Order: sequence, then structure tokens, then C-alpha cells
Amino acid sequence: MCEANAEKTKKRIMLKVSYDGTNYCGWQIQPNGITVEGVLNQKLSELLKEEVSVIGASRTDSGVHALCNVAVFDTCSPIPGEKMSYALNQRLPEDIRIVESKEVSADFHPRHCSSRKTYEYHIVNAPFPNPMKRLYCHFTYLPCDVEAMQRAAQHLIGEHDFKSFCTVGAQVETTVRTITDLQVFRAEDEIIIRVTGTGFLYNMVRIIAGTLLEVGYGRREAGDMPSVIEAKDRQAAGPTAPACGLRLVKYEFD
Amino acid sequence: MCEANAEKTKKRIMLKVSYDGTNYCGWQIQPNGITVEGVLNQKLSELLKEEVSVIGASRTDSGVHALCNVAVFDTCSPIPGEKMSYALNQRLPEDIRIVESKEVSADFHPRHCSSRKTYEYHIVNAPFPNPMKRLYCHFTYLPCDVEAMQRAAQHLIGEHDFKSFCTVGAQVETTVRTITDLQVFRAEDEIIIRVTGTGFLYNMVRIIAGTLLEVGYGRREAGDMPSVIEAKDRQAAGPTAPACGLRLVKYEFD
Repeated sequence: MCEANAEKTKKRIMLKVSYDGTNYCGWQIQPNGITVEGVLNQKLSELLKEEVSVIGASRTDSGVHALCNVAVFDTCSPIPGEKMSYALNQRLPEDIRIVESKEVSADFHPRHCSSRKTYEYHIVNAPFPNPMKRLYCHFTYLPCDVEAMQRAAQHLIGEHDFKSFCTVGAQVETTVRTITDLQVFRAEDEIIIRVTGTGFLYNMVRIIAGTLLEVGYGRREAGDMPSVIEAKDRQAAGPTAPACGLRLVKYEFD
Repeated sequence: MCEANAEKTKKRIMLKVSYDGTNYCGWQIQPNGITVEGVLNQKLSELLKEEVSVIGASRTDSGVHALCNVAVFDTCSPIPGEKMSYALNQRLPEDIRIVESKEVSADFHPRHCSSRKTYEYHIVNAPFPNPMKRLYCHFTYLPCDVEAMQRAAQHLIGEHDFKSFCTVGAQVETTVRTITDLQVFRAEDEIIIRVTGTGFLYNMVRIIAGTLLEVGYGRREAGDMPSVIEAKDRQAAGPTAPACGLRLVKYEFD
């Protein structure tokens, strides 16, 4: 609760939030289940002794991880913006860390401004799973043709109607999105799919990962991608790859 | 339980075992607490319908991880050695995986034969911890001079009396050990200490890590290492670094 002349002293704080999504029902507050947003609101309210509701940039799903999701909130607290991270980290559980905090202009809204997000989808591709990566990577022992996956990926770059790559039932005005970069490469025992875009549909990255994996397995041709896009039909794309392999790695605001 | 002519059909199987040590009280069976050895014995006994006791190569501590610990056991089972991994993995929890299994000669004993082990100690060195690495890496935000750590490490390579790097009270015939290689390097947000040797004392790698970190922080000089070794006194070395940062990564038998 701010003082009487609240509006004058109110400021908007931006948080960069890193979390292991394993133990959370995703970002967004749910009636039943612990969420990252819920924990942030609770700990911020305790710290600042006022009711705080953060606005998150990306509502990651249950089990999805983030190195740098973004959230903003308004407060009358005298704590300087850049010190918020330290104060908040002392209260947060170890699987959520604020990696940066700073004051931003009062009209900055992380979902209403132009931005680019980068996601990575990690797949351990080895004869057996690596127990230390089981919570952060999908696993397949099947041989994968990463070059074919990379060729398939090239077809998805650019502005397209990604309706085939959107879970049915999602309510959006348009299913047109722009992917600015999409790379598939091996690193140690992993295949990493790294995709950057200005916006993503519901489950879009996980469906892209599931579809590219089918190309990797040889069940689809890389050259089939244009017709998958053209179909504008979820059935035309591959399965939704599991949540644990997905992580939000970068958020850039213009 | 083997048949009457058991000795004739008995064979020795070697397992390479990968595990996330977070939820285990180490390798070795304990009266109170779940251990990797205990789980392996239980699941192998269920699978093979005979009492099985594995012999482990390295008795890793509580919270320490392994990519390839080694264990052997004797069995009369008709399951071919190389198929044991698949059968056993179906019964094991997800944080333990058998990554290889094969028949070995009946006199192969993983602790009584000449071998080289490689451990890695991982430290996230960044302003804030990475939640996805919190169970697998130590963390420090302090600036670290990795070149100084590497210079200090060079003094530890070779055959030395490592009594200063052994937890007091450990019962061993000699505290002389040989380190064949010891590297310190950065990889992404981590500092990795990789050490190979023919044998290690109790907590030796964690004490080396704790001592090298003090060099990194500037609290000790790299050139002090010879006198730390010479002291043959645990007090002369640095603190024992936390278990979670340690992982056994390679086991080689001559």
C-alpha cells in the first residue's frame, strides 16, 4: 500500500527471472498448483509489505525452464531497483533466481512492446539417458540426421502462418508469426534446436521440435516442411515434444 | 540362487553406472538412507531372482554424481551380459542409469586392479546462481583468477603425499597418491577443475577444489602449493568444497 501521494513515488521495476520449471505448474497463476508468478507475487509482497502482482513477459508451461524470463511490477518501495534482486533472492526458493532488477519507465509493458525471444530445445541423443540432464533435456536413443533437421528448419524461418504448429483451441487473433533464426546443432551428447522470433504460438517451439525430430529420424523429409506450413492444420505437423527439453534463453526488447 | 553346478555357470558382469547423486546417501550401503549400491542390489536381485551384491569401484559421497562409476557382480542368470543394462534400466529409478554392461573375467575386481579415474569439479562463477545447475555445480559470485588456479594446479600433478588434502580420520595405509593430470578452465558460466589420477584419498578432490578456489579468490598464492603439500596437515589446505559440484566422469582400467 502506497502513501497518499502514491502516484508520485510509484516506480516500475523490471526483473529478469531464471528458474528450473520442474517443480512448477508453469509461470501463470493457477487455482491449484504452485507457479513461478505466484511465488514471485508472494515473496515480493512479503518483502515490500504491499500487494504486488507481477506482469510476466512469457507464460511458460508446466515443466518449461527459463534463463531470463521478464516480469515487471509497480511499487512505492524505497529499495533501489537494482537492489531488488538481492533482497528478493534471499526469500525465493533456490529454483528461482532474479538475475537482474532495474527501474524502467512506467509505461513499459513486457507483452505490449516489440521484442524478440530465443528458446532452446535440448535433446540428449545417446544410447542411454544422462541422469543429470533428465529434468532439462528430452531424450532419444534413435539416430538423428541433424543435417536433415537443419535443412528442414530453414523452411520455417521467416513470416508464416504457423497454424500447423499451434495446439488446437488456443485463442489468438492471428497465427502468423515470424521466426528470425532457427538453428539445429550438436553439442556434446545433445542436439540443440535454437529458435528466435518476435512471437510464438501456444506450444509452437515444442511442436517445431517434435516435427524436426521426425525429420531427424527419417520419418519425414526436410522438403516436406513447406506443405506442413501450407496445410494450416495441427495434424500435419509432428508431435509436441516434452516440456522439460524447452528453455527460454533470451529476451530482447527494442 | 544358482543351480547345483553353480560354479560352472557363474559369470561376472561389469556395469557402468551413471547417476544423479542428489537424492542418495552416496554409493555405499548405509544403515539409514537410500544409496546407489543399495538400489542396485535390490533391483538386480529382483531382476535375476537371486541375491546380488555389487562391488563398486568408487564409493562416491552423498550428493556426488557419476557419469560412469563401475560395479561388478556374479550371477548364474542366462541373460547375456550386454543385455543386462536394458533389463535393469527398466527397473531402476530415472536418476540411476546403466550405460553399459558386459561379461568380464571372473577375477576382475574394480578396486584391486590398476585404474585411472577422472573427476570434474564444476563451479558456476557468475553474479547469480543458475537454478538449472544448482544441483550439479558449486556456486560463487566472487571473481576468480583461473590462470592462478591453473598455475597452482600444476604443483599438485605427480606423486605426492597428499595428507594435507585428506579428511582427518580416514584410515589408509599411505597418503601418497599420483595425479596424472589436473586442468582448470572456463566453459560458459562455469569453472571446471578436471583431475585424473590412479587413486584418491577421502575428500581429496573436494579439498583440492576448495584450495584452488582460495587461490582463485586471491586468498592464497599459486606458489604456496608446495608448502601446503609439504605440511602433511589438513589445516594447511583450503576448505572441502561442497559435494554437489563433484562428478566422477571417467574410469579407465589397464
